[in-house]
Amino acid sequence: MTTAVEEIVELNNEVEESLQTHVEVQIKKDVMQNIIKRVERSKEKKGVVPIKQGIYLHFGEDQITARALNNDYSTQVIVKKTKDNYTFLEGASGGAVFMDPKLSSMVNSMPRKNIKLSIHASNAVISAGRTSFELKTLDSLEFPQFMDNIEGPEVKLHSDVLKRMYVKTTFAASTLETRPALTGVQHKVKDKRFSLAATDSYRLATITQELDEEVEEINTVIPAPALSEIQKQLDDSVSQVSIRFSKSSVAYSFDNGTTIISRVIDSPYPDISKLIPDQFTTEIQFRVDEIRELVKRAMLVDQENSVQLLVKAEALQARFISRESEKAGFVEDISPTEGEGKDVKLGLNIRYLLDTLNHHSPNSLIKMQFVSNSRPIIIRLVDGDQDNLDLVLPVKLAGNDNPEDVVIEDFRGDIQIKIEDGE
Amino acid sequence: MTTAVEEIVELNNEVEESLQTHVEVQIKKDVMQNIIKRVERSKEKKGVVPIKQGIYLHFGEDQITARALNNDYSTQVIVKKTKDNYTFLEGASGGAVFMDPKLSSMVNSMPRKNIKLSIHASNAVISAGRTSFELKTLDSLEFPQFMDNIEGPEVKLHSDVLKRMYVKTTFAASTLETRPALTGVQHKVKDKRFSLAATDSYRLATITQELDEEVEEINTVIPAPALSEIQKQLDDSVSQVSIRFSKSSVAYSFDNGTTIISRVIDSPYPDISKLIPDQFTTEIQFRVDEIRELVKRAMLVDQENSVQLLVKAEALQARFISRESEKAGFVEDISPTEGEGKDVKLGLNIRYLLDTLNHHSPNSLIKMQFVSNSRPIIIRLVDGDQDNLDLVLPVKLAGNDNPEDVVIEDFRGDIQIKIEDGE
Repeated sequence: MTTAVEEIVELNNEVEESLQTHVEVQIKKDVMQNIIKRVERSKEKKGVVPIKQGIYLHFGEDQITARALNNDYSTQVIVKKTKDNYTFLEGASGGAVFMDPKLSSMVNSMPRKNIKLSIHASNAVISAGRTSFELKTLDSLEFPQFMDNIEGPEVKLHSDVLKRMYVKTTFAASTLETRPALTGVQHKVKDKRFSLAATDSYRLATITQELDEEVEEINTVIPAPALSEIQKQLDDSVSQVSIRFSKSSVAYSFDNGTTIISRVIDSPYPDISKLIPDQFTTEIQFRVDEIRELVKRAMLVDQENSVQLLVKAEALQARFISRESEKAGFVEDISPTEGEGKDVKLGLNIRYLLDTLNHHSPNSLIKMQFVSNSRPIIIRLVDGDQDNLDLVLPVKLAGNDNPEDVVIEDFRGDIQIKIEDGE
Repeated sequence: MTTAVEEIVELNNEVEESLQTHVEVQIKKDVMQNIIKRVERSKEKKGVVPIKQGIYLHFGEDQITARALNNDYSTQVIVKKTKDNYTFLEGASGGAVFMDPKLSSMVNSMPRKNIKLSIHASNAVISAGRTSFELKTLDSLEFPQFMDNIEGPEVKLHSDVLKRMYVKTTFAASTLETRPALTGVQHKVKDKRFSLAATDSYRLATITQELDEEVEEINTVIPAPALSEIQKQLDDSVSQVSIRFSKSSVAYSFDNGTTIISRVIDSPYPDISKLIPDQFTTEIQFRVDEIRELVKRAMLVDQENSVQLLVKAEALQARFISRESEKAGFVEDISPTEGEGKDVKLGLNIRYLLDTLNHHSPNSLIKMQFVSNSRPIIIRLVDGDQDNLDLVLPVKLAGNDNPEDVVIEDFRGDIQIKIEDGE
């Protein structure tokens, strides 16, 4: 005979037992690898809520759902059930939050093409053949909700177009939190034109794309880390992207089952339209690979990456000089392929120049446009999208006060063709 | 008319000027790259004497000499002058100590196959075509002497033999300074046998080579960092090595012009001969690649790299279990290809096992020999040099007190062949 207290304890245990997840699936190793790879970069690296540093995995009757999130954005991957990507060995749905940072290494190390994953309460076992890993997990019900019920204007783009736009702008965003708006990229839609701009207040990158359809006006700022992650996700498995904008967040839906929700930055973005000069006094052109080699050499000397640039445009002469440094100096001459306008003498951050060059193909031509030694320098492709431009501010260097007086003594321009076989 | 004082000043200036290095050479870029590459790893990384962190380069009438040094060893590279590796444009000999850590990057970045190097007092200019770097240098006369006048017994070996001996032992030396002798590798010659031994007091690696010639007895300890550098230098350009041993130092002369002088460690090396058991109660054999994969998986779970190893040798059963950990566990079964003797249950540092496995070819067989759960484990190749062996001490783990009672329940040995195509 049992007492009333014993009966209650037993009932409690039964209820608790019935609430516990108990599921066992057989899943293709490559499916599991791919799911984890797509979400794990989104995990929060540190923070006060441990569960946010985990990966949520749920095996449903029709689909697997995986999620991870951080302070800026959250990522969800959905894989539909097919006849052979996963099957239930026990149970019919269930999941857990995996906290072990080595989860993907464990799955990768499995010696078979199929693995078995069993989840029971706060324990999971991943096994294949003679190998098995046992992991502590957290309850999937405790994982933060995925808020993808976003209502607002929608922009639809081919994935290649969106990737190119993000590659050409995101790098110019600021990493300093002092001006929050600058840590994001401005997204604007007006008159069927979709424009992005990023700046850290020393340089600026902007690009514009014509849209196929009319879309409501949009003006919002999205954190650069979310856009970096979107660039990484835009691989061969994605062809179309839909972006829905609301006041507080933005949702990217890819046609491969991945969705990324980002917060937006609620700070006004500076008006960049007035920054870009429309008149220039000097323009020179270079082959991207040729000037990139020069810049890389110059960067060996100067930690601050500031060089003095002398240009005699009409004579097709340019000289890069590293700033005076205690230990080393650098001088290199280069002949622009084209040049016109007044002489130029100014300081230039060549790290910024290199960032720009790295986003153009090596055998294309760029043009650099100057107004004066204190006004922005504009860099664009000669044959290419004129709605994509980079702007860098000159650096104040001693000795640049008289830009009228540009002298390039003994310009080392005697060799006009690239010599590969010694001198 | 000049005063006497003015005359003295002028004379002083003339003397100083005449003492200053003034030399200009044209040199093949690849020759310069190779010289710098061979010495720069030997540079001291930090310290109180700045010049010791530089690279000494001297261009002589017959040869280039390059040197660098640190607290353990110094390296000298000599390149004989041929008709086209370098020529003097000014002067007939001279050199400098190059302090810039980017020196090799600068040389590598040169856009031509020939470069010009001019040294004038404490300035050097490296140039090619339109590019030039200017560097501050120090006086080459201030650089420490290279003490290669070593007298003592000499061992001559083929470079492949020496490299193999160092690869198979150096990794086991200690990196802790608490017992200085253990940070080196013991070198012994006796009865035409050349033996090396390295141990960090938890594991030991030893190897022996028969010599062609009679050599005096040697027993000396050489710092492991010097031996690591020697391994790196023993590439295709070296075929013969001569090692001369004195009381305080040892000189390695390679037939490609490189010489490395190392100090010796003046502390007695422990007597290792008694450590190696000669009787075993259990022996099992594994394919190197198979057990290496297992070990790599096991290392995903346990930070301390200690696993429990259960062996039922006669049944060809072995199980690796990760120690209890709060977050994850690991179990894997493996069938030895051969096995005999009593059951074994002990703790094993698998990082040490992996180090050993990494020095054997993947498709070879190793044997592990056991005496008891507190005596050294010996690892050797089944078919291979029996004078090369690794010894690891077992780890004390709770639950290993009754090694007689080894149970491997449900040994996962049903699949005896490696399945590549899923289950």
